[in-house]
Amino acid sequence: MIDKDLLEHLEGFLTERRRGLFTKVLAERTRHFTVAVEDVYQLHNTSAVLRSCDVFGVQDVHVVEASLGKKMDREIAMGAQKWVDIQRYTNTQKCIDTLKSEGYRIIATTPHKDSQYLHEFDVTQKAAFFFGKETEGLSEEVLAQADEFLKIPMVGFTESLNISVSAAITLQHVTNKLRNSDISWQLTEEEILEKRFDWCKKTIKSIDDIVNRYKEERF
Amino acid sequence: MIDKDLLEHLEGFLTERRRGLFTKVLAERTRHFTVAVEDVYQLHNTSAVLRSCDVFGVQDVHVVEASLGKKMDREIAMGAQKWVDIQRYTNTQKCIDTLKSEGYRIIATTPHKDSQYLHEFDVTQKAAFFFGKETEGLSEEVLAQADEFLKIPMVGFTESLNISVSAAITLQHVTNKLRNSDISWQLTEEEILEKRFDWCKKTIKSIDDIVNRYKEERF
Repeated sequence: MIDKDLLEHLEGFLTERRRGLFTKVLAERTRHFTVAVEDVYQLHNTSAVLRSCDVFGVQDVHVVEASLGKKMDREIAMGAQKWVDIQRYTNTQKCIDTLKSEGYRIIATTPHKDSQYLHEFDVTQKAAFFFGKETEGLSEEVLAQADEFLKIPMVGFTESLNISVSAAITLQHVTNKLRNSDISWQLTEEEILEKRFDWCKKTIKSIDDIVNRYKEERF
Repeated sequence: MIDKDLLEHLEGFLTERRRGLFTKVLAERTRHFTVAVEDVYQLHNTSAVLRSCDVFGVQDVHVVEASLGKKMDREIAMGAQKWVDIQRYTNTQKCIDTLKSEGYRIIATTPHKDSQYLHEFDVTQKAAFFFGKETEGLSEEVLAQADEFLKIPMVGFTESLNISVSAAITLQHVTNKLRNSDISWQLTEEEILEKRFDWCKKTIKSIDDIVNRYKEERF
């Protein structure tokens, strides 16, 4: 449970504009949808997916990397990406298991399967959208365990879209549909408090000092 | 006017698969919408926009570059981009004038204006979607002469999307809406014949020899 008094104390160190922005952004955040990125080699692609998640209000992103590098940490710390929560896995199965245990349906996005089209997608249930490698696409592991397949209709010579583009189109469409539905997609009050606390910590440089001083004064 | 006999003769040099692909793609091509890209520095961004045009069936793209370089020519010749028609301009005004004279409404895509949202956009009339520079966005020239402003709803910290992502989201949405409408958006029969002829020329390596031989034999 978040200590509301401590949170208010911490938020006193933020500018009013910043506090307002946190509230506004959090009101639009969702965990009804999440995104999983599987072994994407080019960091700028993963980075663009994270950015789209922020833009369209998806709070959690799951990243599968055969080897967890330091490169992503640096990149994430810099951009708007730090406002989405990233869970990292060294193998796909762990990622699928985690998401299934959290009640997500596994949605494999792939142009090659006899998939449903994006516009037919039913947004009612919690869904994790999987995006795969630049050239090969998703692994057999994901394809075999997917609950649904999804594709963006394409009518030209090009047979696939860049992963950052596919993810952006998919997220834009499904989150817009979700926001215009009766589904309760928002974060809970407790989740919002947690994120406010977390974002305070990410914003205030000497946060540990402030928290300690607050505790000393109080107890 | 396209010489249908010559076209049939030329198409005899294509594989059946290729002929079928041309017919299929052309049935989905449109000039109801077009795209204009203004002074985009990074070639891979322009290239991604061209790819999206191919994917979503937009036949014509207008590119404004202060200086026309050779780099784009090489890039275009390689990818799926060779199947869209590119018109290049050295200044924005010429591009706007051309598009207006062809009956296009000028649609400035920009997150900063009090614009209509993508999902509110009325697809009834011919429209040219303008996309601007990576950081500065569209020029004052475009903003001052635009008939409408359009933006993609964004609810995070990030205040703008990469141009290739914005263009893909916009085109995917408006072309999908168009295809589900009663609007006659397809190319005319004559336009389709022209493109079949053009695409034959782009496919057959010794096309000039074949055309000349055909003419010699016939006349």
